[in-house]
Amino acid sequence: MACLMLSQNRFVNRGIGLRESDFLALLKHMPLHDGSRGLNDDAAVIAMGDHNIIFTKDMMVQGVHYFDGADPADVAWKLLAVNLSDLAAKGAKPVGVMLGYALSNVSGSNVSGDDDWDKGFADGFADALHHYGLQLIGGDTVSVADNAPRILSLTAIGMHAGTVPSRSGAKDGDIIYVSGPVGDAYGGYGMVKAGNADKKHPMVMAYNRPTPLLSLGQIIADNVSAMMDISDGLLIDVQRMANASALKAQIYLDHIPISDSYQNIYGNDVDSIIKAASWGDDYQLLCAASAGTSMPQNMTAIGRFTIGNAVSLSYYGENVPLPQSLGYEHHG
Amino acid sequence: MACLMLSQNRFVNRGIGLRESDFLALLKHMPLHDGSRGLNDDAAVIAMGDHNIIFTKDMMVQGVHYFDGADPADVAWKLLAVNLSDLAAKGAKPVGVMLGYALSNVSGSNVSGDDDWDKGFADGFADALHHYGLQLIGGDTVSVADNAPRILSLTAIGMHAGTVPSRSGAKDGDIIYVSGPVGDAYGGYGMVKAGNADKKHPMVMAYNRPTPLLSLGQIIADNVSAMMDISDGLLIDVQRMANASALKAQIYLDHIPISDSYQNIYGNDVDSIIKAASWGDDYQLLCAASAGTSMPQNMTAIGRFTIGNAVSLSYYGENVPLPQSLGYEHHG
Repeated sequence: MACLMLSQNRFVNRGIGLRESDFLALLKHMPLHDGSRGLNDDAAVIAMGDHNIIFTKDMMVQGVHYFDGADPADVAWKLLAVNLSDLAAKGAKPVGVMLGYALSNVSGSNVSGDDDWDKGFADGFADALHHYGLQLIGGDTVSVADNAPRILSLTAIGMHAGTVPSRSGAKDGDIIYVSGPVGDAYGGYGMVKAGNADKKHPMVMAYNRPTPLLSLGQIIADNVSAMMDISDGLLIDVQRMANASALKAQIYLDHIPISDSYQNIYGNDVDSIIKAASWGDDYQLLCAASAGTSMPQNMTAIGRFTIGNAVSLSYYGENVPLPQSLGYEHHG
Repeated sequence: MACLMLSQNRFVNRGIGLRESDFLALLKHMPLHDGSRGLNDDAAVIAMGDHNIIFTKDMMVQGVHYFDGADPADVAWKLLAVNLSDLAAKGAKPVGVMLGYALSNVSGSNVSGDDDWDKGFADGFADALHHYGLQLIGGDTVSVADNAPRILSLTAIGMHAGTVPSRSGAKDGDIIYVSGPVGDAYGGYGMVKAGNADKKHPMVMAYNRPTPLLSLGQIIADNVSAMMDISDGLLIDVQRMANASALKAQIYLDHIPISDSYQNIYGNDVDSIIKAASWGDDYQLLCAASAGTSMPQNMTAIGRFTIGNAVSLSYYGENVPLPQSLGYEHHG
């Protein structure tokens, strides 16, 4: 991600990470580059000559951001994908990535030995780079003590010639759009956690190998007033866009797209939709655009911004109270 | 660093890190950006418009790259300094940095609690940014399980309008220069390890708070044929420059500068000089330039490149066999 606060991908263990917001508060008091956008956006943006250079950084921790027994190729894919998703949210074309990799001998992390895990990661990462037509710029590798968890760090660099959308640009009256169904990663997480998940199941794919919407982001970046990716949950990320833009977000729950796979398991009532919209790891794009803006067909209108603050929900015209949690928070 | 192989700062525990070179070999088979310089340089260099953008990434691990009881402000300073040193070696002017920080509750890491450690790190990092007139661009923070070691990751970004020196550009007949004394970090490491080190002692300062030679690097970058910083040991880094340039390096040990502080403890005989030249963490600049090139006064000529390969040593005209270790190797 790059946004220190928002784009972190879904925690496996939601109880861990209590002091992140405290540390973020400390960082926000450091000397901040204008391009950092106050550490409140998905990525940093620095103008260099005719181009804006976009920087984003996302880390993943074994046992926290991915299961101990995860396929290393899936972990590699996701590490790349979640960073590329931040670039997508800024309309950026990727330039390349830098990898930080902590080698470790972690007992129990896999059956066939850690050398195989590291090799599996490297192979998977190479495959993912090939898939996205990307190249490694550089990086660092360190060794940590036996049984210390692996920590994987990626910095992704992108470019965009036009204006780079922020979270704070939404205007009164803007329509709120989402690029596709939410909740599939939640379903996939449940299947993986239960064991013996079918790796080809679309929801397991959504959880293990999210798709960064790079082309879509580049196409719509110049037409939106605000954009971000959904990493922590649709509702919490809408709230963040509303707060950053000093507006109120009205969300029509009945408009939020959920997949057939999701409905088959969780149903399609209001509780099911709220669950899908308050879990993260979906990596759809969320944006605001003035009414009348031409948007690609896969962008679904799910609400609008108005004067005010916070988020309000409705379901077929009836007000619905906010759930206790709108998504993953890196709270202190 | 950015060079996956070379610029990693000195390990406290030299026995750890055995498989890094294996992993690097895997990375070198990935799709590599031209700017990655084959992962064989201090930093990656990407041309964007009129400028070269320099990227470097260095990680530090608790208990590996710094002592468990280290002052967090010193750790923060060193994390920034070792990355800036890589930029210095490429003649780059820093643009900003991105921080990756793994929060952890590590028992025994300090007396007054981990919150204090993290706060001390943040304060020290802010001080170091102020000192170098730098700003935070972005980053990420994650939480890891209790007692997992902290892993700190920094990406530094710089710019240089001219040609960015590599390690591989040395020419037959070039003079080899070093920017100042080596061995002080070794002395400081010994003092810190022994406990109760005077934090103001110049050797302890050299170990805890190395000085990245940014101005010097920018001044000489256009006049050198090859340049790198010394992170793993003068001799091993000379060997790397020789190998990258397909030349032989003849080093005159009697020309290698060592400080009075170092001599007072370790003497100034050939063994003492070899020790100083085969320990890392000094962050001096090492460069090659054609005979007759005007160099700043603090650059000391310590040898020359000739046709051939590897490194040969002499001491007042007498050949000296190579020591068993030329410096820290990230060997497999």
